[in-house]
Formats: sequence, C-alpha cells, structure tokens
Amino acid sequence: MSEKPASAETTMDNLVALAKRRGFVFQSSEIYGGLNGFFDYGPLGVELKKNIRDCWWNDMVRRRDDVVGLESSIIMHPKVWEASGHVAGFTDPLIDCKVSKQRFRADQLFFAPVVVDDKTVGYVSALESENTTGELQAAAENFKRKKAIQGQLAPVVAKDMTEAKPEEIALIPSPATGEPGSLTPPRAFNMMFETYVGPMRDSSAVAYLRPETAQGMFVDFKNVVDTGRVKLPFGIAQIGKSFRNEITPRNFIFRSREFEQMEMEYFIHEDADWAKCHQEWIDWCRNWLISIGLPESHLSFFSHPKEKLAFYSKGTVDIMFKYPFGVQELWGIAARGNYDLNQHAQASGKSQEYFDEPSKKRFVPHVIEPAVGVDRIFLAVLCAAYTEDEAPDEKGKMEKRIVLKLSPRIAPVKVAVLPLLKNKEQLTQRAKALYAKLKRKYAAFYDDGGAIGRRYRRQDEIGTPWCVTIDFDTIEKPGDTFTLRERDSMKQSRITEAELFALLDEKVY
Amino acid sequence: MSEKPASAETTMDNLVALAKRRGFVFQSSEIYGGLNGFFDYGPLGVELKKNIRDCWWNDMVRRRDDVVGLESSIIMHPKVWEASGHVAGFTDPLIDCKVSKQRFRADQLFFAPVVVDDKTVGYVSALESENTTGELQAAAENFKRKKAIQGQLAPVVAKDMTEAKPEEIALIPSPATGEPGSLTPPRAFNMMFETYVGPMRDSSAVAYLRPETAQGMFVDFKNVVDTGRVKLPFGIAQIGKSFRNEITPRNFIFRSREFEQMEMEYFIHEDADWAKCHQEWIDWCRNWLISIGLPESHLSFFSHPKEKLAFYSKGTVDIMFKYPFGVQELWGIAARGNYDLNQHAQASGKSQEYFDEPSKKRFVPHVIEPAVGVDRIFLAVLCAAYTEDEAPDEKGKMEKRIVLKLSPRIAPVKVAVLPLLKNKEQLTQRAKALYAKLKRKYAAFYDDGGAIGRRYRRQDEIGTPWCVTIDFDTIEKPGDTFTLRERDSMKQSRITEAELFALLDEKVY
Repeated sequence: MSEKPASAETTMDNLVALAKRRGFVFQSSEIYGGLNGFFDYGPLGVELKKNIRDCWWNDMVRRRDDVVGLESSIIMHPKVWEASGHVAGFTDPLIDCKVSKQRFRADQLFFAPVVVDDKTVGYVSALESENTTGELQAAAENFKRKKAIQGQLAPVVAKDMTEAKPEEIALIPSPATGEPGSLTPPRAFNMMFETYVGPMRDSSAVAYLRPETAQGMFVDFKNVVDTGRVKLPFGIAQIGKSFRNEITPRNFIFRSREFEQMEMEYFIHEDADWAKCHQEWIDWCRNWLISIGLPESHLSFFSHPKEKLAFYSKGTVDIMFKYPFGVQELWGIAARGNYDLNQHAQASGKSQEYFDEPSKKRFVPHVIEPAVGVDRIFLAVLCAAYTEDEAPDEKGKMEKRIVLKLSPRIAPVKVAVLPLLKNKEQLTQRAKALYAKLKRKYAAFYDDGGAIGRRYRRQDEIGTPWCVTIDFDTIEKPGDTFTLRERDSMKQSRITEAELFALLDEKVY
Repeated sequence: MSEKPASAETTMDNLVALAKRRGFVFQSSEIYGGLNGFFDYGPLGVELKKNIRDCWWNDMVRRRDDVVGLESSIIMHPKVWEASGHVAGFTDPLIDCKVSKQRFRADQLFFAPVVVDDKTVGYVSALESENTTGELQAAAENFKRKKAIQGQLAPVVAKDMTEAKPEEIALIPSPATGEPGSLTPPRAFNMMFETYVGPMRDSSAVAYLRPETAQGMFVDFKNVVDTGRVKLPFGIAQIGKSFRNEITPRNFIFRSREFEQMEMEYFIHEDADWAKCHQEWIDWCRNWLISIGLPESHLSFFSHPKEKLAFYSKGTVDIMFKYPFGVQELWGIAARGNYDLNQHAQASGKSQEYFDEPSKKRFVPHVIEPAVGVDRIFLAVLCAAYTEDEAPDEKGKMEKRIVLKLSPRIAPVKVAVLPLLKNKEQLTQRAKALYAKLKRKYAAFYDDGGAIGRRYRRQDEIGTPWCVTIDFDTIEKPGDTFTLRERDSMKQSRITEAELFALLDEKVY
C-alpha cells in the first residue's frame, strides 16, 4: 500500500477542491462572484470548526481551574483602540497609482534599477510572486531590448517599495500601467474596519470592528477580578470573530479579512518568572496541537529577534506549521509585560491594579498571551489529514483512496452506522436502533446507500474515524456484535455496543 | 417556605445586579463609560450562553437527520442585501432636530395638540415612556398655564410622529429644545452598519454587517444541495452574530446593537402542506424552550395579522415570553414562501431551482424560518430562573436565599464538589479525585472555602443543580458515598460515584 501523506506534498488545489466538493468551505457570496477574503463553512466544515473550538474551550477553560471564559462584543468603545495603539499603529504601507486608481501594499510591490555597464538606465517593477526576482530580471532584459540600449546588463537587485527613495519613486513604473510617474510614496493605511454607531455619521460616532479579541480581556480585567473569585496567576480566554481589512488576503482561509480567534491572557505576578511561564504556555500550545492530530514533524518554533520586538515586549515565540505554501505562523505566544493594562489605566483613569494577598503587594499584573486563529488551525488540520493512498475496489483491484486522517476529537462525524443491506429489515432495524442511541451523544451518520466499499470510501473522504456495519453475523450469531472498520488502517474487527460506546468515550473527549 | 418565583415579579434591577455581581453580563467597555447597546458576557455568562447554543445545535442539527449546519461570514457581498430588500427597506423612521442636532425615532416621539374649548392652541411632545400620555397631559397643562390661556383643556390624544401631518411638524416642539420649528419630517434611516472592504473608500467598496444570519442560508442553498446529499424537506441552520444599528437599544440585552442569532431555514416542496409544517416548527420551538427550562406559563403565541404581513409571507407566529418589562417576542416562526431564493435567482442570474426526484418536478423550494436570538433566550432563562425564597442559615434562622433555578442542560456549572473540611486530607483527596474525573466531561467546580451552608448558597446563586459533599461518612462508612444536595428542594441524599455519573448523563445532555 503506497501512501502519500500530509501537507508538504498536498497541493492547495487538491485541498480547496475537496473542501468545496464535500461541503467544508465555500467562497462567501459565491453566487454573486464571491467577496475577496471572506469564506463560509458548509455542513461538514462547521462541525469540524465547532469541534476545534470546543476542544480548545474544554482544555483551556473547563478542565483548568486557573482560566475563565469571556465573550466581549466585536464593536467596542473606540477609546479601547486608541489606548491599545491600534488607531495609530495598526497599519499597512499603501501606494496609490494615480492613473489606474489601484492601490498596492508597498511591501508586496518590488522594484529594481536596470543597470547597464554600471549605469542605471531605468527601473522595472513587479508584484510579489513565487519568482519576483526572475520577473524583474525578465522585465529588465525587455526594457533594455525595447530601448535598444547596448552594453552589459547587470543582474537585478530586488527591493520592495518601502525601501524606495523619494527620487526613485517617480521613476518606477506602476504595475497597473507599465509607465512611471503615477506612483505615490507609501502611506499608512489602517487595517481596522470602520463603521458608525447610532444615528449620527460624524467623528463622534466612529467605531471599529475589533482586529483582535485580546483587548476584551484587558478591558474586562477588573470586572472579572471583582466578580470571579480568581487569584493570580489566572487566565481569561475568549473565542470570537475578528476583522482585518487586509489589502491582499491570500492562501485560502489562511489570511482572510474575517476570521475567528482563540486568545487567552494569562495574568501573572509582576515578580513572577515570566520566562518560565512563557515556556510553559509554548509547551502547552504545542501539546494541544498534537492532541488534535497535527504531526510533530510539521511544527517548528520561531523566536522573534529582540530588535524587532515592541519596546514593552519581553519575547514572542510563534509555533510554525508547514503549510503547502510554506512554513507559516500558526500560534503566537507573547510575553507582553503589563503594557496593555497600563495603557487602559492611563486612558480610562481607572486603576488596573490587583492586590495580591500572599505578597501583600498592589501592582498591575503582567501577561502571557497565546493567540491562535481557528481558521488557521482548520487549514493546518486539513493539510495534515489529507492523504492519498490505495485501497481495493469492489473487484479487489487497487484504486486511489482519498482519506482525511482527522483526530477523533475533531472529526465532523465520529461514527457511521451502515446496515449491510438496505432491504433487510432485520439489519436496518438493528442499525437504526444503534444509530438513535449513538446520536444522543455523538455526531453519527446513517448511510444505507450503495455498496459497502463505496460507503466506507465516502466516510474516509470526510474523515470519519470508524464505520460500524450491521451484518448477518450481528443478527444471526450470539453476542450482538458489529463489524468495526477503522479508517486509517482499514482493519476490521468485531465489537459490541458497550465496547463501541467505551471506545468513543475514550477517544472523542 | 415562602417562594417568590420567576419573572413577572422579578424586577430587572435585581436581575441586572445579579448578572453583574456574579459575572454573567457586563456592560461593554465599561471602564470607558460603556457603549450603548453592546454587552460582554463574563465567566459564568459565557458558559450559560455556550450551553444554550450547544443545546440548540445538538437538538436542531446533530440529532436530526434533516438539518445541516452552516457558518457564513458576517460581511457578505453587498448585492445580497440589495436582493433581500434590506438596502431599500430595513429602515427606521428618523426625525432630526436641526437646532440640537439630536435624532429621534419617529415612532418613539409622541405629540398631542393642546385643545382648549375645542380649539387647538399649540402642541406638546414627549419621548415614549411608561406613561407617555400622562407626560403629554402634564405638558399641555403647563403650556396652557404658561401662555395664560383661559378655558377648558381637553384630554390629550397622543400620536407618534409617523402620524404627524406636514403642517403639524413645524408646530411640534423638539424634545431637545422645548421649542417648535426645528424638527424635520421623518426619513428612512437604514439600520445596517456600513463599512468599506479593501483599500478604497468609495461606493464600490461599501459593505454591511449582516442584520440577520438567514441570508447566508439562502445564498449557500445551491452549494449545500450540490455537496451535502440533502433531499427535501431539509433545513440549514446557523448560529452567529448579527448587527442592527438600533436608535434606542433598551431592556438590557433584549434589544442590543450586536446580538447572536440561531436561525434555521427549512426548505419544503412547493406543493407541500406549508401550514402543517409551519405548525410543526412552532410546536418544536415551544417544546425546545420548555426543554431548557422556560415555564409554559410564561409562553404565549402571537399570530401576525394578515394585513400586516409582507406580500410574499404566508404567515408568521411569534412565541412570546413574559419578561419583567412586558410580554415580548422571543422566537419568530415565519412561512416565507420562496421569496428569498427567487430574489437571489433574479439578482445573481443563477437558478435556485431544485430537482425533486420523487415528483420529477423542478421548482424553487418554499421555506419555514424559525429565528431566535441567543441573548433573548439568555434573558428569558435568567428571568424565569431567578427566585427568592428562604433557607435556614448556620444557626437555623431563616434567611433570604437567591437561587437560579436553571435547567441542568444549560446551567454554567453542573456539579460542585465540596470537601466538608478544608484541612482534612482524607476528605480533600477524595474530593479532588472525584473532581478530576467529573471535569473531564462536565463543567464542575471545586470549593473548599467557608462553611458548607455558605458554599451551597454560592452555588444556588449561580444555578448549580447539584452539590456533592465529601464528608466523614464518605471515608468512614462502606460504599464510598457522598452527600448529594439538590438545589431547588435543598434535599440531601447519599449517592455513589457511579450513580452521580448516571444522573449527570441522564440530565445534562
């Protein structure tokens, strides 16, 4: 049995096709041509997504004694985002083309001088791609040929537009028109979506869709302390939608404009060993990802270099995942000091101090923040689970099999109940009774259509860990046993109802 | 034992105070003075809310074979809202005061002519209140006295500003200034929050925060049919945030600007008996409300009169709940024909027809839509559960007890584990072992602080159905039994671990 496992070799095309075909992810508003950067989760996708959320919530909140939950509103008071620094600083550098009226992200627009015999004779530009330098080189050759310039063309040196000097900008061609002279210098574009609250449309009514859930935990910190009987160290966790007006959303659901976050702020004593606590949360997050089925081989760590950190930051480590489009950030774990609470104390005039009984000290707690996107986990899980191998068809001939090797914790359907034959009432009756009993607690699926091999294959493709077949041995032999068919190994064994429930109870929670 | 049950007598003040005190609901951005119409759910609130959502999802989607789930994006293509009629018609009538720059909802601003000896001598106005007519009457008397008008003042006849004639508007005083002449005629104000998607800020980039989740199900109808192996009749269900820019949000979380909906579109054959199906869903919704603990006595039905229905509507029935502020709409069940799918077919140019195998007919399905707000259920549940009765204090003297009689299905904490004494290791060890085992599957709480009666009372106030006390009988007598204390009756009995798990398994799912 040859196997082609997991994400490095999985092409995004295969994944996106499966996601659409089996109702995991649709483009938002598809009948209207879609809306760039927005996605819908279909019948199976919504179950997978809910399972990821529920696993996180159970492990992060319900099973821990030191973390409580919160759901703050998406639209908050605009002063929250002034204090947090998002109004001033949550920006991308944008460049306008005055002729085409198009806009480009400066860090995604590349340029190079065309150098012939050590003399700069002009400029070329290209949008970031898999081979930006190659494109620029070709453009430079083209430029030289078109202008009939003689001499030795030097290899291009690509820079992005944030590095362009003012005098260069006027000479760099717009990717929209191919001609220089229309590009503006980069300017800061705020990525928060703006709206107006209430009947007025003036500056006093401006509000933002939150670009992160984290500020909710800071703003409600005092409320939680005053009402929740919590003691340091403790965390406040939240799952919810956030919005970022990305100029170039990309890589399917990896970078979208509307997305869902799972964030937790873990508050610690000002004198606590933050580095130790930071490391404990890095380990926790990594282990959690493994617990929902991500392979260790696809996970790595990236420690942000000191010189790139914000002045208040003590350190940030990202857990990276090997996606088909590259190794990318999945989960950021940041040691943020007590910057955020201090900012809100100053902006609101309300003390954010905590009185610590054991040390008899009053201080503003520090915080460790693990922040992850549900959609990114969803995509990582699909990438890691997607496998093509071979299995025998009805006549025993080997054929390609697509299987999603999802962990039972997050699989949309936990178990499929299949009566061997549709028209044998004894079989379907027993199958329906089992199905009804399972469905009370587990996402189960009943399927009596087509050959049993076909039915197995359908469940493989949506990642159902187990199929239970009610066959003639069930009704004719003693013991009331079913055929249990395991997804990954395709092995079959016999199992009783009690054993099946015990298996699910062990593996699903 | 005297008891003061449930909502009619429960004042909102008591409820809001409890909600804040015990961390159910906070005002959004409270440290910045709050944001009108936005709320946060605290540690206990988020659990209660999640349980309401999960109960609905389990009963509506996972346990049914004919309903599948969906999560569509909050920001959709703007053409969705043109086709649905929201851009043109989802409006409130607004009146401006040109002097104060304030705005009022026309249907909440009341006026009356001041009639003396059968002659209209002027106008008075008042914002809607609990006693609008009384306020207008007082204003009329005041008007007559101030202007020193002699004669017999007729009782005022209050109307709202949507009924004001153009010549009257100029004579009606603004509630902001007290003087006539500054009010404009009512004009339509769209209640959808607007924003811009992408780097441009022009009309081509305008998008809306969805005012309902329902359109997601219509827009994705074909995708679900093509990928989900569904057959008529079937439903698509969604839980998610919606936004309405209410001019006057009120009644706590009952009418807020950001809220969460649970909606389902049940698609049926064009020739199906829609009235029967409509009634079945009305019954289902009512029974579901009872299953999560709302008392039948607080539920009633309101059938929208034919003449007030939209032209395409076949009928709408609202399940009403007796809130402390009046009998109000909780759950609307609408028979919408096939209006929405037809609108999208026309606007998108994509056929929304379904081929029905049994009847060999091709048609656009009709729909029954049960739509309910999570926050309204949350509030109804709190209102119904809030009870004040009496219980003996430590010395046996009766004292007031506040208890939330929440159904075990939705209570934030299912069971509290209480070692009788904190400093007896045998007790705490046994308690911690039980607690760890419970926590794997159920929201449990461990409390060893204070007298046992105090601890019971704390759990009563947050609605924990059962407390389990590990006492000397547990460790000294055979059988390893605990004291099970029931919240509502306060009755105590002895129970084994296996019996406790069986009880939870029976009552919680």
